Amino acid sequence: MPYDNSAPALGVGMIGYAFMGAAHSQGWRTVGRVFDLPLSPVMSAVCGRDPEGVKAAAGRLGWAAAETDWRALIERDDVQLVDICTPGDSHAEIAIAALAAGKHVLCEKPLANSVEEAEAMVEAARAARERGQLAMVGFNYRRTPALALARRMVAEGRLGTLRHVRVTYLQDWLVDPDFPLTWRLRKETAGSGALGDLGAHAVDLAQHLAGEPLAGVSAQSVTFVGERPLLDGQSGVRAGARNDAPSGARGPVTVDDAAVFHGRLASGAMASFEVSRVAAGRKNALCVELNGTLGSLTFDLERLNELNFYDNTQDPAEAGFRRIQVTESAHPYLEAWWPPGHGLGYEHTFVHQARDLVHAVAEGKGPQPDFEDGLRVQRVLAAVEESAEKNSVYTPIPGSPA
Amino acid sequence: MPYDNSAPALGVGMIGYAFMGAAHSQGWRTVGRVFDLPLSPVMSAVCGRDPEGVKAAAGRLGWAAAETDWRALIERDDVQLVDICTPGDSHAEIAIAALAAGKHVLCEKPLANSVEEAEAMVEAARAARERGQLAMVGFNYRRTPALALARRMVAEGRLGTLRHVRVTYLQDWLVDPDFPLTWRLRKETAGSGALGDLGAHAVDLAQHLAGEPLAGVSAQSVTFVGERPLLDGQSGVRAGARNDAPSGARGPVTVDDAAVFHGRLASGAMASFEVSRVAAGRKNALCVELNGTLGSLTFDLERLNELNFYDNTQDPAEAGFRRIQVTESAHPYLEAWWPPGHGLGYEHTFVHQARDLVHAVAEGKGPQPDFEDGLRVQRVLAAVEESAEKNSVYTPIPGSPA
Amino acid sequence: MPYDNSAPALGVGMIGYAFMGAAHSQGWRTVGRVFDLPLSPVMSAVCGRDPEGVKAAAGRLGWAAAETDWRALIERDDVQLVDICTPGDSHAEIAIAALAAGKHVLCEKPLANSVEEAEAMVEAARAARERGQLAMVGFNYRRTPALALARRMVAEGRLGTLRHVRVTYLQDWLVDPDFPLTWRLRKETAGSGALGDLGAHAVDLAQHLAGEPLAGVSAQSVTFVGERPLLDGQSGVRAGARNDAPSGARGPVTVDDAAVFHGRLASGAMASFEVSRVAAGRKNALCVELNGTLGSLTFDLERLNELNFYDNTQDPAEAGFRRIQVTESAHPYLEAWWPPGHGLGYEHTFVHQARDLVHAVAEGKGPQPDFEDGLRVQRVLAAVEESAEKNSVYTPIPGSPA
Amino acid sequence: MPYDNSAPALGVGMIGYAFMGAAHSQGWRTVGRVFDLPLSPVMSAVCGRDPEGVKAAAGRLGWAAAETDWRALIERDDVQLVDICTPGDSHAEIAIAALAAGKHVLCEKPLANSVEEAEAMVEAARAARERGQLAMVGFNYRRTPALALARRMVAEGRLGTLRHVRVTYLQDWLVDPDFPLTWRLRKETAGSGALGDLGAHAVDLAQHLAGEPLAGVSAQSVTFVGERPLLDGQSGVRAGARNDAPSGARGPVTVDDAAVFHGRLASGAMASFEVSRVAAGRKNALCVELNGTLGSLTFDLERLNELNFYDNTQDPAEAGFRRIQVTESAHPYLEAWWPPGHGLGYEHTFVHQARDLVHAVAEGKGPQPDFEDGLRVQRVLAAVEESAEKNSVYTPIPGSPA
Repeated sequence: MPYDNSAPALGVGMIGYAFMGAAHSQGWRTVGRVFDLPLSPVMSAVCGRDPEGVKAAAGRLGWAAAETDWRALIERDDVQLVDICTPGDSHAEIAIAALAAGKHVLCEKPLANSVEEAEAMVEAARAARERGQLAMVGFNYRRTPALALARRMVAEGRLGTLRHVRVTYLQDWLVDPDFPLTWRLRKETAGSGALGDLGAHAVDLAQHLAGEPLAGVSAQSVTFVGERPLLDGQSGVRAGARNDAPSGARGPVTVDDAAVFHGRLASGAMASFEVSRVAAGRKNALCVELNGTLGSLTFDLERLNELNFYDNTQDPAEAGFRRIQVTESAHPYLEAWWPPGHGLGYEHTFVHQARDLVHAVAEGKGPQPDFEDGLRVQRVLAAVEESAEKNSVYTPIPGSPA
Repeated sequence: MPYDNSAPALGVGMIGYAFMGAAHSQGWRTVGRVFDLPLSPVMSAVCGRDPEGVKAAAGRLGWAAAETDWRALIERDDVQLVDICTPGDSHAEIAIAALAAGKHVLCEKPLANSVEEAEAMVEAARAARERGQLAMVGFNYRRTPALALARRMVAEGRLGTLRHVRVTYLQDWLVDPDFPLTWRLRKETAGSGALGDLGAHAVDLAQHLAGEPLAGVSAQSVTFVGERPLLDGQSGVRAGARNDAPSGARGPVTVDDAAVFHGRLASGAMASFEVSRVAAGRKNALCVELNGTLGSLTFDLERLNELNFYDNTQDPAEAGFRRIQVTESAHPYLEAWWPPGHGLGYEHTFVHQARDLVHAVAEGKGPQPDFEDGLRVQRVLAAVEESAEKNSVYTPIPGSPA
Repeated sequence: MPYDNSAPALGVGMIGYAFMGAAHSQGWRTVGRVFDLPLSPVMSAVCGRDPEGVKAAAGRLGWAAAETDWRALIERDDVQLVDICTPGDSHAEIAIAALAAGKHVLCEKPLANSVEEAEAMVEAARAARERGQLAMVGFNYRRTPALALARRMVAEGRLGTLRHVRVTYLQDWLVDPDFPLTWRLRKETAGSGALGDLGAHAVDLAQHLAGEPLAGVSAQSVTFVGERPLLDGQSGVRAGARNDAPSGARGPVTVDDAAVFHGRLASGAMASFEVSRVAAGRKNALCVELNGTLGSLTFDLERLNELNFYDNTQDPAEAGFRRIQVTESAHPYLEAWWPPGHGLGYEHTFVHQARDLVHAVAEGKGPQPDFEDGLRVQRVLAAVEESAEKNSVYTPIPGSPA
Repeated sequence: MPYDNSAPALGVGMIGYAFMGAAHSQGWRTVGRVFDLPLSPVMSAVCGRDPEGVKAAAGRLGWAAAETDWRALIERDDVQLVDICTPGDSHAEIAIAALAAGKHVLCEKPLANSVEEAEAMVEAARAARERGQLAMVGFNYRRTPALALARRMVAEGRLGTLRHVRVTYLQDWLVDPDFPLTWRLRKETAGSGALGDLGAHAVDLAQHLAGEPLAGVSAQSVTFVGERPLLDGQSGVRAGARNDAPSGARGPVTVDDAAVFHGRLASGAMASFEVSRVAAGRKNALCVELNGTLGSLTFDLERLNELNFYDNTQDPAEAGFRRIQVTESAHPYLEAWWPPGHGLGYEHTFVHQARDLVHAVAEGKGPQPDFEDGLRVQRVLAAVEESAEKNSVYTPIPGSPA
């Protein structure tokens, strides 16, 4: 029984069903049960190359049909929106084809593995936009309620003039030198390492929260573990931990383990970034800090229901960082969830992403972040790589203010 | 399309669709998408008194049918398990009838509004048990992964001999004297106030984590705000905040705002409890601390993905409370979820509750906590009320070791 | 060279030179170097029974002379103020004699080991007060800047009407069953265990911060480790850890390891307390929480430079517990110390205590807490013991409002 | 009365008596009262230009004599050790002269305002070293017990191979554009701004904790507030807050408000730094994180009694950052202080610095950090400035491994 008979259906087809596919499925499955929506998402079909695997995934995750060829999926009549959850090397081809097929597109981040691909995607999205199709990139952390609140507060001027943006995104699953060589550790599939995986989020959040682009960066990156055990076919973070590769066989890691860079925002504020997958003890530590003349904000994804705010206009005798539990009905997305103090989890960002995209489709106006946002991030990542190769020299971001 | 064709169906019928009903629905909807289950839960029907309301709720929450009479619901052939999400005053009648109708039962906490009702429910459950039916009470916080890990560590002896159990459960939604008189503030519907609502969780967790019952208690309770605005029909925490009562009309609050009590566990360990709904700034602060001769554990529901452990066997120069992020695949329930550091939320406790209940039904062996656990809690709550009435004198718990 | 030639001298004589004596010495030595004082404290003489020990202590701690008989010390012409740092069993005798000898008195907490002694001390202090002498009891934690700020905020009405006071004071140095039987574990010297040692602070702070007395209490206490290794002569917490007792010889512990009690303040607010010296991992965890209708405050002595404030009058979308770093010049005592964020330590409470006492002596008024405050605490501790013996029955505090 | 008659005296003469002078005085006054020392520090004389001011300071801070000419002070017979607490522009001249006069020297950080000065100081120190004189630079934070413990743990190999060092040092006293133009904001007196003031600590700690030097850096720096109110004569952080400058008159700020840089350690580990005096809400937030293959450490000066340790060799199910309260007698410097959990403050770092320097003088072997350490820091700061001027290009540190 559909959860709202009066709302027209919006057929969704998803490509890829690993970690991201499972998370997106949870989003599509839940969104209409929690939020009032103008369209009713229907989980029409999922696509994967392995016939057995995709069929099982469809049954498990709740998709009505399974496809093994993404070209078939994007042509289905019961699919109006294509959700791309594959590794970055296939994003451009699929997204451009899906747009050409007249579908709306949601594409996982990073938008692409190169600026060139991202530019082609933006061009395709612009053309499709004129035909009424939408294209969104999956920077889901924007929709963590605490970060949505942060953006709202910055936009309201609560921080005054921004002085510093500081983002670190640290994980530790690559500390173990025997963690296997999954697709995330190969340049040809992942584009880059911690940079594209974690840095893409970090850069997007910095630009989004600040409300302005990076003008340039100075960077270094490093690969500490140069070779890792070979592994066939598997993907995902946990999957790899099982390490069922043949003993002894190792292959070269062709992406970075960590990257660090600093830059300037268009307004002159200072920005600093560090991303790593070898920071022991840091599991998913996306930490954001913004310092402005009127106040500061801090956030840690490991405590995602909290936003800390320092109000610099307060009496110094009573001022202090305030731990806001972002679980009030006055907070973004929270009117639909539980009472105060009953926190949400990681996967809820995908529910919120689905909610906003459905509204955008219904209203015919562009979802944020769009492919241009994705391209902007891609250009920063490219500048980071370029700077890292050129002795860390400050490298302007093409298209950004000087 | 069912998510697993090979697993036999388990039809679920739910009574009540407010806050708890929404949370349970999320549990039933999600559980089979995440966990491998021996039975496939089907959301057959939901029941509520208001025909329009229940129909809308069914559509929204994903139940296949709507009923307005719970007696009809428990008789449905497509319902094998009755999930009771109503206020406490109707638990006994519904649960006993559902068991008599041959159904498994999941009953929200507190089990009942009185020891007598709880005893009758236990008796019904015992009889039904012999017919192969199961009865579970919804102390969902046991299934917070961090608290499940805490229980595992206590059971493994990591704390040594227990000295202290300390539980406080603080909220603040009743600080506002104009918060309306919902069912939760009337003795005839809720049984008691903070005591039954929050204290039931606190007592169950203390006994569950310690692995032993309370022997007796000394208590006081208080109602700070004696009258509140009248309100028609609404329930739930957030609902009431809207306060659409006629101005001026007030009615008496007949339950406690707060209660505090201390007691002894059967082993001689000291236990202390405090519950309140008028603790400004505390949103859902269920804080647990266990101190043993070999170690200590602390937990705060406002940071539900974390468990803090002090290992007293370590070198003092390196000892300290350790913030365990309970998001590893080695942690309870986590093998099915996201990578490390990607936290879960409040509602996941209901997914885990559903998971364990489905396994229990399939295996025909009793789910924990059962109605006896619920009765044990009820007896403690009754002793708390008795002690509070009798000048806080130490009041033994009937059925517990002296 | 005296640090202020123009300020008249105030000769101080101290009795006892163990842990407390060292801390008080640090206070007397430092106070005039940091604060502007109307009198110039001079560390005239220290007293202890062991001639070698006290002489070494005088040299080490900076006292000009050493005495072995406290009666000699209180008669010295260069002593105007007697600072009593001995175990509780000698407080009454020394304080009364010192007052009779015309001296001002600072007496370590707890004021005495019994209500009777405390009453006699109050009587002596009253008589001395008419002769212009002052008597203060050493509840030094009142002078932690964060708690002084807390008191100021309560007095200013920032919390509104108080609902809850919650104090726990947990340590763990008695978890080890082989920690020796120091004077702190014998009723004849210490009066009680965790209760007098930690509970005295907890009760004084609760009454001081709330600005009102406890009306009555319901209590239990427990001794988990009944016998401990015998030890000769030593005192202090760390001293005992060395355990140089003859192997095998054990003696009975005659005080409590832990106590828990709840009560009501005169205004009807609820109060709860727990003190323990067997809470593994808790080193000096004096945690205070106050909840009022307009706001809440929390404090943890293990992070003594911080006070957390929840302002319930704020917009819920931005409300949260605020971590005030109590290191601003606008904070109590801080105008004399370091720049913001440069925290103080435990011993500074003794500097502040000395500062306020010197001012009181110069101005001939105050000081707080006086012996009446000490008696008030003693009466609560006695009621706690009485309640614990009488099945936890609610026991009114003599002299408090019903 | 000297606190230890048998220990030979070590006469100390201090130059400068503002913030740093007060902190050093507290160190010299306290050290012999707490620690067993081979020499007995005597506070012989203090020096400042203002005759009234220095006389008052001598009285207040406890120095036996006052001088107005530092050349006179370093010639005094009762001064064997010269403690330099002036702004950086006079360090070189005074230190070199004091060493030439045969004195031991303790010089506040940064060692100098330029590499050239620092090199001259190192040369003077080397020559003096052959005559048995010692020279130390005042990187006092090395002697925070938690950071001393951190260094010990790194040296013991508890972190394995280092991957990341991350240091941020944030304050906010310059957010206010009307904070006056004190000496700390002028290049001619302070050398640089946040960089020399905060960055010097950050760099020294990174190199000290890692046990290896930085090889090179890439940097940017910024001055957000270009002009500030003029002020006569005052110094210090709090002093300036009073702002008694004539209204309207402003002068140019010639130092940086903030700097950010990343680099590589000799071993190849990545290092990142950020320092700012305009980070609203950050009072004295010196945060350090070290990630190695076997574990990680984190520290925040705003909670200076705590060190957090993640032991990567532990069972993942029980692993987590451990909050070590660095107050155990097994911790560096703590055997002389209070019982566990009784924290120290900022000023104790100066007591510990004095302790170690007195031992070094007595034993005739070099104190750490010596002037070479100071020079090493100075070279990094110079490379930071050079890189910031040259488009952030990676700039090797002279004398460091490539």
